[in-house]
Amino acid sequence: MTISHKRYLFTPGPTMIPPSVTAARAKEIPHHRTPEFRALTQKVHEQLKNIFCTSHDVYSMTCSGSGAMEASVVSLLSPGDVVLCVNAGKFGHRWVDLCKRYGMEVIELVVPRGETLDPAELQNALRQKPNIKAVFTQLTETSTGVTFDLEAMGKMISGTDAIFVVDAISGLAADRFLPDAWGVDVVVTGSQKALMLPPGLAFISLSQKAWKCVETSTCPKYYFDLKRYRKGHDQGDHPFTPAIGLYIQLEESLRLLQEETIEHIWRRHEILARATRAGMEALGLQLFAKRSSNALTAVYMPTHVDAKAMINIMKTELGVTVAGGQDELKDKIFRIAHLGYIDRFDILAAVGSVEIALSHLGEKGSLGKGITAAQKILAEPF
Amino acid sequence: MTISHKRYLFTPGPTMIPPSVTAARAKEIPHHRTPEFRALTQKVHEQLKNIFCTSHDVYSMTCSGSGAMEASVVSLLSPGDVVLCVNAGKFGHRWVDLCKRYGMEVIELVVPRGETLDPAELQNALRQKPNIKAVFTQLTETSTGVTFDLEAMGKMISGTDAIFVVDAISGLAADRFLPDAWGVDVVVTGSQKALMLPPGLAFISLSQKAWKCVETSTCPKYYFDLKRYRKGHDQGDHPFTPAIGLYIQLEESLRLLQEETIEHIWRRHEILARATRAGMEALGLQLFAKRSSNALTAVYMPTHVDAKAMINIMKTELGVTVAGGQDELKDKIFRIAHLGYIDRFDILAAVGSVEIALSHLGEKGSLGKGITAAQKILAEPF
Repeated sequence: MTISHKRYLFTPGPTMIPPSVTAARAKEIPHHRTPEFRALTQKVHEQLKNIFCTSHDVYSMTCSGSGAMEASVVSLLSPGDVVLCVNAGKFGHRWVDLCKRYGMEVIELVVPRGETLDPAELQNALRQKPNIKAVFTQLTETSTGVTFDLEAMGKMISGTDAIFVVDAISGLAADRFLPDAWGVDVVVTGSQKALMLPPGLAFISLSQKAWKCVETSTCPKYYFDLKRYRKGHDQGDHPFTPAIGLYIQLEESLRLLQEETIEHIWRRHEILARATRAGMEALGLQLFAKRSSNALTAVYMPTHVDAKAMINIMKTELGVTVAGGQDELKDKIFRIAHLGYIDRFDILAAVGSVEIALSHLGEKGSLGKGITAAQKILAEPF
Repeated sequence: MTISHKRYLFTPGPTMIPPSVTAARAKEIPHHRTPEFRALTQKVHEQLKNIFCTSHDVYSMTCSGSGAMEASVVSLLSPGDVVLCVNAGKFGHRWVDLCKRYGMEVIELVVPRGETLDPAELQNALRQKPNIKAVFTQLTETSTGVTFDLEAMGKMISGTDAIFVVDAISGLAADRFLPDAWGVDVVVTGSQKALMLPPGLAFISLSQKAWKCVETSTCPKYYFDLKRYRKGHDQGDHPFTPAIGLYIQLEESLRLLQEETIEHIWRRHEILARATRAGMEALGLQLFAKRSSNALTAVYMPTHVDAKAMINIMKTELGVTVAGGQDELKDKIFRIAHLGYIDRFDILAAVGSVEIALSHLGEKGSLGKGITAAQKILAEPF
């Protein structure tokens, strides 16, 4: 692959990175036990509250998003606790798996792939099992492109003793999300999504209700013990050596995000998502998610073309990487993320690359159809 | 302007820069009088011959392209020499100006803006004035987007005593150009065009016929004395402190260019140019250049919209910078360069930004027309 193909990353993490965030890698790596780095840590932790839309403290950990998911399980719960996990895809299943490994009793609400949870189902489950200690779900189920009605779910949960734990790893800052107002107690995200950073950092916020659970938790833990992160938090101290370079990049990405404002970031993602969906539908392709996230668009593989060939043409001939389906959705769907450092013309590239790939595979008359439909939405000022 | 608008530079220099070339800026700056830097200089000078398509040595200078234009005038000629300058735009006029300032007798072939030189005119001039010492022209006249038939012109000139000096600043590596085969003696270019570097370096190659002129030149000169550059050339030495950081970036950009190969680079630019022209015409806009360069597309400003408003919307609302017209063409044309680090999806952005701007200015029904026409060409594998 030569210069003629720039690299476009339309995957639901890692996402593309702004040049100034990349350039921040060239800054020197200070020691972390210094006043300068403590001040930087305090600053980014404070700014993250604006992006999380929470008044609670946000903690950072050097691990992937899954590490922070594990931290919320092992720090909040004890073996034998009854928990409810919404399993609507690969990442819903991860909550189930994590909780089972640490000896919790898991009530699993299985949702057909591509569909979202009907909040009434949650209501029923909460009534039937009043001793549920925690409810685990996603803001966006990355494997299907579905987003949940967390506002409705949060209202039900906040009336109980259960804490509401949300994996917002790929949804945060893409889908509108007001955890405090909606009664979400724990929010987890990762660096390589809408935060526009390379992978390596995870973030977590906890309500007072959640911190009370932390006090009584008996799960075995060391690196993922959230008490350790709380201890030096106010002083900008880290319990373990942090990925210092990523914090320096985080300072720059948060500067850009604050400059845009969270409301505008949501609006941008919403327009990009609408344009992508319109583009796909104009090409005669069928959307997979019933309640679509603004972070990514999942699309049924066209039945008349070879799925692997299409994704391969996009990657090798056009420089465009999208995600295929995972597990049982392998070869059945593909996923275009429009997440992070993405502007309107990236959507022309995303949709345009699908139609060029279809054209190379013999599809007649598709050239221009998808991008025209997308363009009509992208022309909106935002 | 926030993240929602990436910055697209569709100007005929500076052009966009590949991430790995930008990253090379982070490398340490060695001293230039070292074996390592001499070896790097020798390597890039050798590789430049492949991009120039010449067997002659290529010299580098720390200055803009205009500096190398001046170097060719002051190093080749003497006051009183008769020279012929093709003036088909702002940069053709620069040759006239340079030669007059150093006391040459200038025969000016003025070509109406947007048109190219009929080689027969050159033939006539050469016959009428057999003592012409040098012919100056452009590969691409950047101010109009016109490219010249240098092959035909070179054949005429190589049969005379005159040397043929070509400003290929914005044309090199975008428009097909074979200086040795076509009888071009001197080729000048700059770093901030198809070489995909920041501004600051200029390059020049000279045939043996040209070096003979250098021997007899009496123009006053110091920094622009090409003999100084020739002196240490074989050892990779520089006569003055060079812009070391740019040479380090040049090493990376040449790596990318060599990987793509000059034939493929020409083909890429040709397809991008064709797609841009098709996009503009589909929007009902009229092309300005009669013989179009593949480096840039000059377009008449639509009469029904405000020219400045259109360019301003593209820049401030969409993040897309194109060039307006210069001097007498100010507000009459705009210029989209598709030069350097550009791929097919950039053309969707360039054409798409014009149609969105037109739509914001009240133009009905343009959304999708230009990009669809472009897409049909961009879908070609290249």
